[in-house]
Amino acid sequence: MIIDKLYQEVEKKGMVCVGLDPNIDYIPAELKEKYQDIDEIIFQFNKRVIDCTFDLVPIYKPQIAFYEAFGLKGLMAYSKTLKYVKSLGNLTLGDIKRGDISTTAAMYGKGHFTGDFEADFITLNPFMGYDTIEPYLPYLREGTKGVFVLLRTSNKGANDIQYKDSEGKKIYYHIGDNLNAMAEEFMGECGYSSLGLVIGGTHTDEAIEIRDRYPNMYFLIPGYNAQGASGDDVKLYLNGLNGGIVNSSRGIICAYMKEKDGYENFDYFTRKAVIDMRKDIGFNQI
Amino acid sequence: MIIDKLYQEVEKKGMVCVGLDPNIDYIPAELKEKYQDIDEIIFQFNKRVIDCTFDLVPIYKPQIAFYEAFGLKGLMAYSKTLKYVKSLGNLTLGDIKRGDISTTAAMYGKGHFTGDFEADFITLNPFMGYDTIEPYLPYLREGTKGVFVLLRTSNKGANDIQYKDSEGKKIYYHIGDNLNAMAEEFMGECGYSSLGLVIGGTHTDEAIEIRDRYPNMYFLIPGYNAQGASGDDVKLYLNGLNGGIVNSSRGIICAYMKEKDGYENFDYFTRKAVIDMRKDIGFNQI
Repeated sequence: MIIDKLYQEVEKKGMVCVGLDPNIDYIPAELKEKYQDIDEIIFQFNKRVIDCTFDLVPIYKPQIAFYEAFGLKGLMAYSKTLKYVKSLGNLTLGDIKRGDISTTAAMYGKGHFTGDFEADFITLNPFMGYDTIEPYLPYLREGTKGVFVLLRTSNKGANDIQYKDSEGKKIYYHIGDNLNAMAEEFMGECGYSSLGLVIGGTHTDEAIEIRDRYPNMYFLIPGYNAQGASGDDVKLYLNGLNGGIVNSSRGIICAYMKEKDGYENFDYFTRKAVIDMRKDIGFNQI
Repeated sequence: MIIDKLYQEVEKKGMVCVGLDPNIDYIPAELKEKYQDIDEIIFQFNKRVIDCTFDLVPIYKPQIAFYEAFGLKGLMAYSKTLKYVKSLGNLTLGDIKRGDISTTAAMYGKGHFTGDFEADFITLNPFMGYDTIEPYLPYLREGTKGVFVLLRTSNKGANDIQYKDSEGKKIYYHIGDNLNAMAEEFMGECGYSSLGLVIGGTHTDEAIEIRDRYPNMYFLIPGYNAQGASGDDVKLYLNGLNGGIVNSSRGIICAYMKEKDGYENFDYFTRKAVIDMRKDIGFNQI
């Protein structure tokens, strides 16, 4: 099961998932001058981040929206980035948040688990129902792929639907309970399933409750720093366990921008950001 | 407002939205032999459908999953298809069902309202909350673009989240009521907003209730035939009004496959499918 590989990599390297969300404003002027085409500018920036962090990072998560924004060339950069990470032996997580019915979902599965956009894991949106998750499961059954399904996000709008109470429990618990049952089929030897959950790092009041309720589900935790979750918040979700990966995008890929000599020492500041974050979220405790 | 253009086109041509979901099995062997590259095979099939229906069809809806499935070449076909429809003066609806927070949503907006993948309308998924709709609204404010937000879908899984009761009303009504308020800002002269809703054509028991509750919202109605909604079901959502577009994909693009001499008479059978559907859903009544 692919989840075993992720678990082992986290055990060795820590839980930092680097979000490769290359907003054009984050890319050093030097790279923009050196390369002509947007696909090459984006890819070379990602490569720079990856080259100086791959021994510290189990998995990279490109957010596909930042690539779709630049059309076909942007998606060429997305494809090149995924292939480059794979060539180094690291894992990839395509943050695509797709959600659609039957044959349409099967097409997304083909698109993101094979071919140009192949990733080891993808994110999914469950709004249209649990039948929209099923078309991806044959890949999990084969052991080669995994998914993280949105459960409770870290934005303000999480209250609008996810937090609504129904039949005595919140919508996100309805979703989680159903996915938890579905996840049993894809358990790895590490004790977690290749079907995991996306749980925003804020709202820490119920963090331990969520961790305890789904002991066999691995978490993708966004929201660290940029969306208001501190290292202590995130630790509650991990509960001293190797039980999830914590995403940071701007905190890592923009680290160099905060320093006067940032570009000259890009590798140093980028590595330092990963190492500091790893410590902050308790890598030494797992 | 773009909704006025859609309204006028529907008034002239009828409410049939053709779903361009080019599953490779639907494409005639003759086209697969004639063209080498998958992007050209897909595009030429779409072009064939478009060329024989554009005077009967206000808007075409490519489902992006069927293009993402073929990676970069598939998305080249998606881009070419959108540009071709635009060159004929017809409207386009990118069925992308994206849903994500703040800057990420802004990137999807840039990706699908400008550049290679530019469409007149796109579909959105509201699961992460109403703040995830906001980044698209500047395009609606300019009057040039529109969105259809998922409200209640036609698949079995619609029951899992959308149908749950909370605070005395169903989740889909919570969503609809909030979007209805948001839609007021984007009202066209036709009496509808450029912010519309996706309402599956099945579950007709509450069709009139939904139509009455949101009198100023234009509907995108999928599920005709393939997903079990009959012409009479769909009429309930339209209630004798020009108040929505009804999507059919397989019913139109596979019409030729049902006939012995289908390929030789592709144009005839494809046009006939649109004309029959238009009649079945009550074009003469609006």
